[in-house]
Amino acid sequence: MASELEGTSIIGYSRGVARGEKLQGYNPATGEKLGPLYYSASDEKINHAAKLAEKAFESYSRMSGREKGIFLRRIAANIEGIGEPLVIRAVQETGLAPARIQSETGRTCHQLRMFAELVEEGSWVDARIDVADPNRKPASKPDVRSMYRPIGPVAVFCASNFPLAFSVAGGDTASALAAGNPVIINAHYSHPGTAELVGTAIREAALSCSLPDGVFSLLYGAGYGVGQKLVRHPLVKAVGFTGSRRGGLALMQIAASRPEPIPVFAEMSSINPVFILPRAIKDRCDEIAAGLYGSVTLGAGQFCTNPGLVVLKEDEESRKFSSKLGDMMKQSGTFTMLNPGISLAYSRAVAEREKSAYVRTFPHQHSEVLAERCQASAALFHVDARTFLTHPDLNEEVFGPSTLLVTHTSREELLEIARHLEGHLTATIHGTEDEIREHRDLIAILEKKVGRIVYNGFPTGVEVCHAIVHGGPFPATSDGRSTSVGTGAIYRFARPVCYQNFPNSELPDELKNENPRGISRLVDGMLTRDSVVNRHQ
Amino acid sequence: MASELEGTSIIGYSRGVARGEKLQGYNPATGEKLGPLYYSASDEKINHAAKLAEKAFESYSRMSGREKGIFLRRIAANIEGIGEPLVIRAVQETGLAPARIQSETGRTCHQLRMFAELVEEGSWVDARIDVADPNRKPASKPDVRSMYRPIGPVAVFCASNFPLAFSVAGGDTASALAAGNPVIINAHYSHPGTAELVGTAIREAALSCSLPDGVFSLLYGAGYGVGQKLVRHPLVKAVGFTGSRRGGLALMQIAASRPEPIPVFAEMSSINPVFILPRAIKDRCDEIAAGLYGSVTLGAGQFCTNPGLVVLKEDEESRKFSSKLGDMMKQSGTFTMLNPGISLAYSRAVAEREKSAYVRTFPHQHSEVLAERCQASAALFHVDARTFLTHPDLNEEVFGPSTLLVTHTSREELLEIARHLEGHLTATIHGTEDEIREHRDLIAILEKKVGRIVYNGFPTGVEVCHAIVHGGPFPATSDGRSTSVGTGAIYRFARPVCYQNFPNSELPDELKNENPRGISRLVDGMLTRDSVVNRHQ
Repeated sequence: MASELEGTSIIGYSRGVARGEKLQGYNPATGEKLGPLYYSASDEKINHAAKLAEKAFESYSRMSGREKGIFLRRIAANIEGIGEPLVIRAVQETGLAPARIQSETGRTCHQLRMFAELVEEGSWVDARIDVADPNRKPASKPDVRSMYRPIGPVAVFCASNFPLAFSVAGGDTASALAAGNPVIINAHYSHPGTAELVGTAIREAALSCSLPDGVFSLLYGAGYGVGQKLVRHPLVKAVGFTGSRRGGLALMQIAASRPEPIPVFAEMSSINPVFILPRAIKDRCDEIAAGLYGSVTLGAGQFCTNPGLVVLKEDEESRKFSSKLGDMMKQSGTFTMLNPGISLAYSRAVAEREKSAYVRTFPHQHSEVLAERCQASAALFHVDARTFLTHPDLNEEVFGPSTLLVTHTSREELLEIARHLEGHLTATIHGTEDEIREHRDLIAILEKKVGRIVYNGFPTGVEVCHAIVHGGPFPATSDGRSTSVGTGAIYRFARPVCYQNFPNSELPDELKNENPRGISRLVDGMLTRDSVVNRHQ
Repeated sequence: MASELEGTSIIGYSRGVARGEKLQGYNPATGEKLGPLYYSASDEKINHAAKLAEKAFESYSRMSGREKGIFLRRIAANIEGIGEPLVIRAVQETGLAPARIQSETGRTCHQLRMFAELVEEGSWVDARIDVADPNRKPASKPDVRSMYRPIGPVAVFCASNFPLAFSVAGGDTASALAAGNPVIINAHYSHPGTAELVGTAIREAALSCSLPDGVFSLLYGAGYGVGQKLVRHPLVKAVGFTGSRRGGLALMQIAASRPEPIPVFAEMSSINPVFILPRAIKDRCDEIAAGLYGSVTLGAGQFCTNPGLVVLKEDEESRKFSSKLGDMMKQSGTFTMLNPGISLAYSRAVAEREKSAYVRTFPHQHSEVLAERCQASAALFHVDARTFLTHPDLNEEVFGPSTLLVTHTSREELLEIARHLEGHLTATIHGTEDEIREHRDLIAILEKKVGRIVYNGFPTGVEVCHAIVHGGPFPATSDGRSTSVGTGAIYRFARPVCYQNFPNSELPDELKNENPRGISRLVDGMLTRDSVVNRHQ
């Protein structure tokens, strides 16, 4: 399989050159380096990719939903068509289990088809029509129509922890392409081969759909330089990023200080607090402990929705719960982490908590020796509410299979903990229905802090659907007014364009009187799929 | 009437103190200073307003659409209730004609009632429901529901050129309050009395609706300090601004460099290009010239949608058109501008073009002497396409009753001019239907450059409705993905919040199975007002 990999960037329908800075895949489970070498995209190639994308926008932005749907479905089919070699390479590059790679591939293809369906149906453009009234006094009313349109080339940064679903053909790419934007990928150094396999699948799909050269490019970069140049490029109009807080903040700053600032949709960090209320812990101690253990250690804890904070009442039941959870964590085997950087960062964060005077550490097997081989064990910590509230470092994400228990002694402390939280992707509450009713104040606080509130479940496992919100107030994301998962994600890469008094024939199909697409439209404030008859012009 | 004005900030239901830096209204038509003195809000009062707003958010954010609708309608009624004193004060402070103030008041109240209707109906929240499927394989499907929720206290900056419709009770305030956010106003120094009258109307409305203290505050500031402190305040979650490019950019930088960056919706500058195609000018020379003259000089040219650039073909017809327009501009009387700063800036910009070697100046009456008395005359300039394309200063907004004709000699030059444009609020095309069909490439370029394209009309006079887009790519606005006029503006101050597996009774009404609000919802991807029956839990 490796012989099929070229090790160069994909620049539209051509390739980068095998020159300059290099990077290489790495198997965290074995320590083995993986061929081939990958070469950083040169400045010239970055610029070429941007120019091709800008040119491709002219025609791709005007393609029908049907045409874009065919392209997205073809990408999904091509990815599925890679089969075993994709699983093998992704497992090698990430240390994730084959079953996880298979299910993530399934999710990736499901996302592509979901966006295909969305644009084929077409109502997502939020078509709005206010018909003219030439007789209105004092001034006649013009005919005003608007709909969402793509914005231009989008730069997408791959995430290390989702080599498929948040990488080359992940949610950002699917939503940007669905909206009608060319995409330029910044591959993650952690899985260059997986990126090339998927990138090739997209390129082949574009070719077989006869799409314009440059609708898709994929850039490799040995350091941060390539990605930063991409965000600075004047032809790039928006950025999608999933990764660290430091990385996301750096891109936000670059984008904000461009001569033309552009939006950055960065998903950065989240500790996803879990609140367990007393009766829930009494009724379902074992079940919740087992579920939480599974959620904390899933994928070696390398999920943005990993529950890194558990808030519960200081009492006999919660001590039993903690001890049960502690036993499971202690007995957990070792997990392979994604790469040495993540593994060492986890090890350092665990060591810091261990040696902290104010944190109680449950016995665990994690060690620096393990970390050097990209291995990690679960780790559990405990502080009281006062300690948590007075030590800001305890709010920081520890990326890996670890969580922090915080116990409170009063309802006021519980609410104070909630108020003290930064923005996160999710919050979870375990409780009886009565308890939920009694904690409406807690829920009201959480509604301001997170994008999704989970009841009697766990935050990992984000459902890909219409209603999902995978986002949240800063610093969980750069802009809490959007989602990066689900059909709502398409609006990040689109903007409304308005046509006043246009001849019917020159309007986009979505806005024509006869509604040839049969989409749902807001006509004079009423949602309807009917054609517009009352048109004066 | 002046005796009713106190000259202090409105801090929820209390007032600021008459101490510290002062400012004062000014009548640009007479040069007379207007009482009373207005005192800058102290740091303590700014902080108090923010804290009250944060506290008010707790209950105001949870009010029903009906309750918010009553509040918005009460504000409109209270503003109408001020009557003549409001017209007199606004005319004194702005130099605008009484009829303009009356129609702007009408528009302001119409906007408030439009948002009232929107939230009373309720479907704006984009309720989405994906019902559970416990039998789905391999993993059961959770119940996922989401809707738009308010984001927190919003800072709104008043605009000098719209003392009502883009000021204290303007579009930003109406949309932010409609979404469920408290609002803190930064009054414009140019019309402090008008601001106090309208601010009092809002405060009275809040009181009579028994709304929480702090749902509305209004701050005065003698310099930029008060506004900047407001944008820096950690409890402020978004900013609405209409004003200069320099002012907007400064606020964007402040907001982006906060520990918690927040979105700024700044509408900054736009020259609103008008393209007149040859057959249109042949058929309707006089009509277009008269319409353009009216649009350029409306409100002394002090509109964000003022047409500051007119592109036409270099030929006999366009020379006739230019000469006709030039005559009208020359014969125009003088206009009173809003304040000395704007008047002097206009005078300076006109003088710069006059003395520029590469610009042809049509004879006009404008002079610096006029400017010193806040008076302005219309001014018309002309360059050829080459000159325009090579002199970036010609892209800059001249805020006042002036426009620049650019003549081209080929279709390629015409398209090059369009491609050369920055982002603007609007573009206008005059042409026959055949010409429009022949210029689809031009329209495709303009769709990337502006928020609204007007056919055979003029850009001034923004219709307040559902389909309108008053926005556009940077630098027209800070974020071209939104509108500041029309019902779509509500989404700038809202974010989606998602509820997973929630008990039906604890969901917001908009997401309950039985759909008690009767709103339109996306249930499993289908728009419906029906209740949800297929619920497993």
